[in-house]
Amino acid sequence: MDGVMPHWLTKRAYLEPEKIAMELESGEKISFLDLKQKSEMFAKQLQTLGVKHGTHVGILSANHTSFIIAIHALSYIGAVAVLLNVRLTREEINFQVNDSNTSLLLTDEVMEQSAKKMSLTIPVQTFSEVETLKPGDLGVRDEIHTAEAFTIIYTSGTTGFPKGVIHTYGNHWWSAIGSVLNLGVDASDKWLATLPFYHVGGLSIFMRSVIYGIPVYVVPKFSEHMVHHAIMHKKVTIASVVPVMLKRLMNRLENDIYPQTFRCMLLGGSAASFSLLKKAKESQVPVFQSYGMTETSSQIVTLSPGVALEKIGSSGKSLFPAQVQIRHQENDGIGEIHVKGPMVTYGYYNRDSENKTVFSDGWLATGDLGYIDREGFLYIVDRRKDLIISGGENIYPSEIEGALLTIPGIEEAGVIGKDDDEWGKVPVACIVKMNPSITKESILSVLKDLLASYKIPKEIIFMDRLPRNSSQKLMRGELLKHIKKM
Amino acid sequence: MDGVMPHWLTKRAYLEPEKIAMELESGEKISFLDLKQKSEMFAKQLQTLGVKHGTHVGILSANHTSFIIAIHALSYIGAVAVLLNVRLTREEINFQVNDSNTSLLLTDEVMEQSAKKMSLTIPVQTFSEVETLKPGDLGVRDEIHTAEAFTIIYTSGTTGFPKGVIHTYGNHWWSAIGSVLNLGVDASDKWLATLPFYHVGGLSIFMRSVIYGIPVYVVPKFSEHMVHHAIMHKKVTIASVVPVMLKRLMNRLENDIYPQTFRCMLLGGSAASFSLLKKAKESQVPVFQSYGMTETSSQIVTLSPGVALEKIGSSGKSLFPAQVQIRHQENDGIGEIHVKGPMVTYGYYNRDSENKTVFSDGWLATGDLGYIDREGFLYIVDRRKDLIISGGENIYPSEIEGALLTIPGIEEAGVIGKDDDEWGKVPVACIVKMNPSITKESILSVLKDLLASYKIPKEIIFMDRLPRNSSQKLMRGELLKHIKKM
Repeated sequence: MDGVMPHWLTKRAYLEPEKIAMELESGEKISFLDLKQKSEMFAKQLQTLGVKHGTHVGILSANHTSFIIAIHALSYIGAVAVLLNVRLTREEINFQVNDSNTSLLLTDEVMEQSAKKMSLTIPVQTFSEVETLKPGDLGVRDEIHTAEAFTIIYTSGTTGFPKGVIHTYGNHWWSAIGSVLNLGVDASDKWLATLPFYHVGGLSIFMRSVIYGIPVYVVPKFSEHMVHHAIMHKKVTIASVVPVMLKRLMNRLENDIYPQTFRCMLLGGSAASFSLLKKAKESQVPVFQSYGMTETSSQIVTLSPGVALEKIGSSGKSLFPAQVQIRHQENDGIGEIHVKGPMVTYGYYNRDSENKTVFSDGWLATGDLGYIDREGFLYIVDRRKDLIISGGENIYPSEIEGALLTIPGIEEAGVIGKDDDEWGKVPVACIVKMNPSITKESILSVLKDLLASYKIPKEIIFMDRLPRNSSQKLMRGELLKHIKKM
Repeated sequence: MDGVMPHWLTKRAYLEPEKIAMELESGEKISFLDLKQKSEMFAKQLQTLGVKHGTHVGILSANHTSFIIAIHALSYIGAVAVLLNVRLTREEINFQVNDSNTSLLLTDEVMEQSAKKMSLTIPVQTFSEVETLKPGDLGVRDEIHTAEAFTIIYTSGTTGFPKGVIHTYGNHWWSAIGSVLNLGVDASDKWLATLPFYHVGGLSIFMRSVIYGIPVYVVPKFSEHMVHHAIMHKKVTIASVVPVMLKRLMNRLENDIYPQTFRCMLLGGSAASFSLLKKAKESQVPVFQSYGMTETSSQIVTLSPGVALEKIGSSGKSLFPAQVQIRHQENDGIGEIHVKGPMVTYGYYNRDSENKTVFSDGWLATGDLGYIDREGFLYIVDRRKDLIISGGENIYPSEIEGALLTIPGIEEAGVIGKDDDEWGKVPVACIVKMNPSITKESILSVLKDLLASYKIPKEIIFMDRLPRNSSQKLMRGELLKHIKKM
């Protein structure tokens, strides 16, 4: 679906210069014209630093306005934004920066301190530092080429090793269009953003904002009180959340009833429990379950308005421009979920051989297991076999196992996700040690330098041996049964 | 913007099988699942007639459900629909059928009688006849290739000779997407269709219907009473009209007030008078002026909700994926309107040399004159210099002049459009005759076989000579001044 179109932000600022693009908790409002002017200026300042078409620029920042301005600025140059999770360790950041050929890192003031300790080999600039630079005079783009890369976001994908998902402008565009053909859009819509902007679920809200011409209400760090307040009093009509957020919101709700104009609580990230969905239904909260991943530029399957409450537990049907299929079905109809559509990435950055395995004929093999019922609704049975989704963050057991096996004296390691009331799942590590002096404490002290805190196992269990099948492959299902019996 | 997506009707029927696709005045309702099943069956019956991928199939029909079923059926085969204006004469139809390489003509029962008198060299089948055929078993398409041709609609274009505008699936898709990003869409929307389906303005409503998942309320032949009734009582939210229809509706309105839920009267075809727009404003009718042509797959510039009443007389701003420019500007800012975007045709069928003149670097030279104000709003000053738009139909003077000059004894002919309260404009012919026996009556009796009735000059004025410039080019402006003085 390749072609040329006007630059989104420029076009929106031309169509509706005064309309609000972003509304902050402070009460500050930024119009589309403001946003365009700030982004163009930032683009020209980045040009002074040598950023040009095709340059990979990292962004390591909490949810600030400057983050979004930087994203648009990069699009004005045709540079690529590499979005980094602020919770990653020095090792993880260094890996992603090198792997993605990032040549400049932009940070907020807080992350600058962390970045300084990371011994990065590339220059680091805070947003504020860039804003003091003399703008270049190279001009900015007025058109977008949909086939070009716009963002790169790392995910561990099906094989457990982090790789950069390339999102073209077209991927982001079609994600927004797929959503509008499902949820509709109205000039009075206002979308609440509280997911991290460096996740595709958060970022995509800002893409929709300029494409639809609707404001984003920003709650930079999730708090059930602030989100509750925004829904109750700030004319928010749509909010994107993950199950742990929904759960806290439902607890906070008490006897309040959201205004009628709040029409969609878009739930992504991982499956929600039946009891949580039931509670939301009883409280008349319009929850739309969805299914998506970094590779699909956010939701690709969503439960539409008419049936949201009838088909509880289902992720819904594929968005209009997308398709979903179950392949390699077992007798019970369960098989591997495959998806296709113009919002699906064409591949991982510099991973030619993996790309050949995962993508074929336009279809992406998700690694997730599910089935489709008679009426065409998708049900997810298991996310990517081993994937642990904890509070909206993806954790790959293989990555934690890899870290554990770097510790001398650990012979075998198996990581699984254990149910957790608050986070959905938390990682648990089962370890076979050769050296009796290895303790839980010594393991954790090594891991904290290697892994983001949400990836650190919440329990460590020492075992004599791990359950393996005849080809010595770890049987995680058996491991899970074992710890459930404990 | 080329690529693959699921077949629109199949996808919509999967997403919302029970939702109403078409609602008729009789009260009959057709769901998306019904529409899909009927269209697939019709496709298989067409296959029995030898219709296959790439076959050009003419449709000559009034506004019937079967017309729309035939369109979808052709898309299931990948065949191309050539839409013929039912008001054309035998000569005109024969020209378009031959020029477009049409190999089969589908008609309704009434048009079958006309078609019989046309001495066509291709087979003619009524919709009902096709419906009695044994369906083929070749299967139907489940995906759409956006770069492929879907429809051909003839227009005289800038040079006055009819040529077939090719609309790809992508053109229709992007037209629908451009509109939704301007007007928004809601599950409760219902779009009234009363424009001829063989015009792109009528056809496009049915494309939006399957893409958005909203019903079309069909008033097959315009009547101010029926359209008024539908807006007042049938929950119509949007209607597409041309100025002559709006005028009749405003007269019919009297003291009625349309329901609040009626949110858009989309006005296309030609410029409306200031007094008409003022009357609509006073009556709280939400008129959205727009600008478009067959080549742009309907509207490409539309006045958005927020400013519809402030910028009266303007056609608005280009739709989100589109661009508009004024080139060759005079001192007053007026110049030729150029448009670009994925809803713009890539060219006329078999007109390579004209295509090279009219299209360049993605831009279409419309031949229309206009200017853009400081805030970016487009104002049309003159449609394609000589174009006469009469009751929503385009009339090209050169075509009428050509017909007049076939009459022996007529030496010169010049046709211009004269203002008309009811139709906007009507054609007037100025003639220099060599043979004194030529009369108005004798001319009209010849023309009625050559030209559709709306193209027949409403007045014929005999003159001694026509005003011409030094290169002997007819000066229509002078001609117009002359007849205004009469």
